[in-house]
Amino acid sequence: MNKVAVVMGSTSDMPVMQDAIDILRGFDIEVDVDIVSAHRTPEKLFDFSKNAHTKGYKVIIAGAGGAAHLPGMVASMSPLPVIGVPVKSSNSIDGWDSVLSILQMPGGVPVATVALNGAKNAGILAAQIIGCSDKCVLDKIILYKEGLKQKVIDGAKSVATKK
Amino acid sequence: MNKVAVVMGSTSDMPVMQDAIDILRGFDIEVDVDIVSAHRTPEKLFDFSKNAHTKGYKVIIAGAGGAAHLPGMVASMSPLPVIGVPVKSSNSIDGWDSVLSILQMPGGVPVATVALNGAKNAGILAAQIIGCSDKCVLDKIILYKEGLKQKVIDGAKSVATKK
Amino acid sequence: MNKVAVVMGSTSDMPVMQDAIDILRGFDIEVDVDIVSAHRTPEKLFDFSKNAHTKGYKVIIAGAGGAAHLPGMVASMSPLPVIGVPVKSSNSIDGWDSVLSILQMPGGVPVATVALNGAKNAGILAAQIIGCSDKCVLDKIILYKEGLKQKVIDGAKSVATKK
Amino acid sequence: MNKVAVVMGSTSDMPVMQDAIDILRGFDIEVDVDIVSAHRTPEKLFDFSKNAHTKGYKVIIAGAGGAAHLPGMVASMSPLPVIGVPVKSSNSIDGWDSVLSILQMPGGVPVATVALNGAKNAGILAAQIIGCSDKCVLDKIILYKEGLKQKVIDGAKSVATKK
Amino acid sequence: MNKVAVVMGSTSDMPVMQDAIDILRGFDIEVDVDIVSAHRTPEKLFDFSKNAHTKGYKVIIAGAGGAAHLPGMVASMSPLPVIGVPVKSSNSIDGWDSVLSILQMPGGVPVATVALNGAKNAGILAAQIIGCSDKCVLDKIILYKEGLKQKVIDGAKSVATKK
Amino acid sequence: MNKVAVVMGSTSDMPVMQDAIDILRGFDIEVDVDIVSAHRTPEKLFDFSKNAHTKGYKVIIAGAGGAAHLPGMVASMSPLPVIGVPVKSSNSIDGWDSVLSILQMPGGVPVATVALNGAKNAGILAAQIIGCSDKCVLDKIILYKEGLKQKVIDGAKSVATKK
Amino acid sequence: MNKVAVVMGSTSDMPVMQDAIDILRGFDIEVDVDIVSAHRTPEKLFDFSKNAHTKGYKVIIAGAGGAAHLPGMVASMSPLPVIGVPVKSSNSIDGWDSVLSILQMPGGVPVATVALNGAKNAGILAAQIIGCSDKCVLDKIILYKEGLKQKVIDGAKSVATKK
Amino acid sequence: MNKVAVVMGSTSDMPVMQDAIDILRGFDIEVDVDIVSAHRTPEKLFDFSKNAHTKGYKVIIAGAGGAAHLPGMVASMSPLPVIGVPVKSSNSIDGWDSVLSILQMPGGVPVATVALNGAKNAGILAAQIIGCSDKCVLDKIILYKEGLKQKVIDGAKSVATKK
Repeated sequence: MNKVAVVMGSTSDMPVMQDAIDILRGFDIEVDVDIVSAHRTPEKLFDFSKNAHTKGYKVIIAGAGGAAHLPGMVASMSPLPVIGVPVKSSNSIDGWDSVLSILQMPGGVPVATVALNGAKNAGILAAQIIGCSDKCVLDKIILYKEGLKQKVIDGAKSVATKK
Repeated sequence: MNKVAVVMGSTSDMPVMQDAIDILRGFDIEVDVDIVSAHRTPEKLFDFSKNAHTKGYKVIIAGAGGAAHLPGMVASMSPLPVIGVPVKSSNSIDGWDSVLSILQMPGGVPVATVALNGAKNAGILAAQIIGCSDKCVLDKIILYKEGLKQKVIDGAKSVATKK
Repeated sequence: MNKVAVVMGSTSDMPVMQDAIDILRGFDIEVDVDIVSAHRTPEKLFDFSKNAHTKGYKVIIAGAGGAAHLPGMVASMSPLPVIGVPVKSSNSIDGWDSVLSILQMPGGVPVATVALNGAKNAGILAAQIIGCSDKCVLDKIILYKEGLKQKVIDGAKSVATKK
Repeated sequence: MNKVAVVMGSTSDMPVMQDAIDILRGFDIEVDVDIVSAHRTPEKLFDFSKNAHTKGYKVIIAGAGGAAHLPGMVASMSPLPVIGVPVKSSNSIDGWDSVLSILQMPGGVPVATVALNGAKNAGILAAQIIGCSDKCVLDKIILYKEGLKQKVIDGAKSVATKK
Repeated sequence: MNKVAVVMGSTSDMPVMQDAIDILRGFDIEVDVDIVSAHRTPEKLFDFSKNAHTKGYKVIIAGAGGAAHLPGMVASMSPLPVIGVPVKSSNSIDGWDSVLSILQMPGGVPVATVALNGAKNAGILAAQIIGCSDKCVLDKIILYKEGLKQKVIDGAKSVATKK
Repeated sequence: MNKVAVVMGSTSDMPVMQDAIDILRGFDIEVDVDIVSAHRTPEKLFDFSKNAHTKGYKVIIAGAGGAAHLPGMVASMSPLPVIGVPVKSSNSIDGWDSVLSILQMPGGVPVATVALNGAKNAGILAAQIIGCSDKCVLDKIILYKEGLKQKVIDGAKSVATKK
Repeated sequence: MNKVAVVMGSTSDMPVMQDAIDILRGFDIEVDVDIVSAHRTPEKLFDFSKNAHTKGYKVIIAGAGGAAHLPGMVASMSPLPVIGVPVKSSNSIDGWDSVLSILQMPGGVPVATVALNGAKNAGILAAQIIGCSDKCVLDKIILYKEGLKQKVIDGAKSVATKK
Repeated sequence: MNKVAVVMGSTSDMPVMQDAIDILRGFDIEVDVDIVSAHRTPEKLFDFSKNAHTKGYKVIIAGAGGAAHLPGMVASMSPLPVIGVPVKSSNSIDGWDSVLSILQMPGGVPVATVALNGAKNAGILAAQIIGCSDKCVLDKIILYKEGLKQKVIDGAKSVATKK
């Protein structure tokens, strides 16, 4: 069974992170959602990170903003691939702090970082990771990409019409 | 069998990208290396990207610098997870162009971005992705993380001694 | 006959790119508009880029935002001059990603980059390129520049009056 | 006859700008080189810019660093396409001033900006502009792009061999 | 008689530049206001800059945004002190282009740059420059600074009361 | 007794962090030094942070570079004041990542951040914190500041002499 | 008795700085608030800074925006720990000027800098500093941190419910 | 008599600031040089700033790096025009801190900022300010500008010869 954990530093990150949850469910992948704050619930961070791989999760998606330590700290304690979503939170300097404090991890402890507020892509990436060993999910991704193409082609038609 | 493709835009990216190759081989994962330039060999880019998932690769690592389009273009044509390594090439503005043109992918086409020149972490991340479905690789990652810890503990001893 | 292709990554770029279309039509230059997404319709990107110079286009204008690969990828496959318009799209980090991923092309594959959201200037630049070999268009540009001057002079009068 | 003017703000820009001259001569395009400082020889700037299109130049390439006003000021007075090369001069803040003061031209007065220190690409772009109306130059560009491809393929072989 | 010229690149800069005019008039210094666009009225730029010091102006204040060439070009042709006001215009990238293209002038041609949108300070600085040789204006500046102090002291009282 | 803990993410931070140790010892404050890596020794991080206030430390100084999570994670688990030193490590993007990932802590969990590589100031700040309740240390700080003044005055003399 | 001085450059900084006052009063720490402008009331700055440590203050919190000199100047004249709050004032360039002109103090004169608009954290940090020598305040901080944890746990529950 | 004060925060700023001294002496303007540290000699800063206009100085040039408070603090206490030179000191983040903490002064207290390390331009600007009321200095500036032009023309000849 395919299961992904989606964690975030604060309930205020939920509107951004919802995109990851929605897309994963669209791929029929099970999602567990939780609030885990690196700075306010460090014990929960420890418990979650150390045990995630024993609970059946294949990938962890972690979103946070400002001095965003959650994705990196989860990655420091879990052998699973961790996808980091830099959130442009209200206390962020235009998102630069969120991006740099997730992306610039030291050698040995990677975080797979996606674009600022790019939770949707985090979900797709998690599905792609699962798709490496699950032909059925891989096929759904190929189909999804076909859908993206079709939308652009439809958009192109509307532009041609308006012209 | 576990196989990862490592591609880069130019032979000048090789000194940075070698770290990815070395670490993957250290995990006993097969690596194929190639130069694929998005801007100078677009046909090769197409062939490689469209067919990578049919050739047994599980993950693609793509490194490039400046206006770095290789990782994103590979991701646009492959259903596999693509890890992007922003390279601080000689024509880059302190690495910012490399980072932003790999990280900031539009919704639908993720690139798992690692730190500037972070090829080593790209290799570890690829191993972690394979580890999702291969218990043997997962165990090697757990062991690798133990090794990281030991090195810090040894370093701490040397500091204590000098004190 | 003078013909310019205006392509963009998404219909959401249209409000910005319309300025290029309008100014070119004002110079009596024919414009074809299309949506070509580097990341979602790579095959269309290939077809368009490889054949544009055989279809009578003299210049290509390409607009995109975020990790903006469209202008550079078109330039990689077309011998025509490609003008890139960095679009400050909703997912962009204040436009920096759009600018850098279009401007910082590697040696061998230039993109003539204009200002952030500078589609109007992209249109004028395309007209100037055509004007290199078409005396009639050159004269229109000279006239256009006179018009710019007159508007400033009129503006100066209104300031003097208010004073 | 095809002729391009290459101007720069200071003799110290010559090492960077030489790339534009070399590539243009490689395309058998005539090049005139001059030092024109917007800030120190404004009269020369005026004379040059106002008359360039009457002297047979088809394109102007202008390079400058720091608060780089030369490309924009030439563009303000010439109906020809002006290509701007941001030079990372010794007094520049990592090149950001050079890039922004050339790229961010107001509506009405475009400068076709290339990458920081991207004089080679400025030369290629000038050739492409001439190629719009000169089949012979267009063919040389198509050939040049084939050459780029071949170099990457050779590079790929050397990587495969070392592997 | 003390006279200052306030010029700006566009009527759209007027709301920002009005602060300079108001403060100068508050110091009983005569102000002439004009629109001089470096990029759209280069001849007017030349006339104005070359002759300003023969028309009784003691200082020139020049405001512009984006790739802001007006202050630097005026400074290149006038021996008078030129104060540059970077305007955060609608086409600016958060003001960085305006600031850098005014501030980073090459050796030999200074522009006295004030803060982004700092037209008020440009007016005060012009008055201070005149105050160097006009005791009466110097005294007004000393008085003005006393006024600033008083306002802070009054503000402090209101805070203390609310406390 | 006054005791400060100085921790850092890697032995490679030691050359920068030594300044903090030296200045504290100069104030006769006891210093314990250790390597604690947030990403490689998370258990040690936990043990250290949770117990520091029970071991007699009054202040913690934590230095790290890149995506620097050590200071913030220590602060999340210790009630003591934590001083963060952003280190410009080799993998850092000009220090911006180090600065932002230490400075931009969320509400509730402060880190007292000093300048990039500002370990000396971290030491002085720790002494000032101790000086709040220790008159003897406060007096040493007052004396230290006098010494700074004297050095400037001596420097001024040498400039006057050379003049 | 525990007393903290909260000063700021302008009454317009009050909405940001109020958070520091509120949190300190929540810890039962006495707070004095004043407006002290480094640039408009330099004499008051001197008086305040030179005497703060003789008036019973244990810590000084100073907030300012733009070219923010208040925290650094207070630190230059007081032996007390000075906490600087960079305020994103209306004249600031996205807060970067506020942050850098407070954070980047020279060796010898530290300012304990918190996040942009991070006045709440400045208050907590001041309490932590006092807590170094006051067991009662330390206990309140430990309690406060427990409260932070509880809020996250409650938030996590609401997320789980909505799921 | 014309006299300019050149002050700087540290003797380490002297190599940059020497350019201002040299150019002023070249204009036969008297220069007094002193080290005045805002952060280490605040009393000297006060004495100097409050009295400079009574000691015959017409302009003050102040150079500093990092969190550079000297120019702004001098400006807060002197009615004279203050020219600020941002110095790229060893502790600066690529010069951005130096530039922003000098340039972004609040309304009421201008600093005439020149380019990073632009001490030469600070000297010329001071001469231009004096030239407002001293025809003899104005004439020297006009002559100086002619010299700049001549050097470019000579440089252009050497380029033409090499061609």
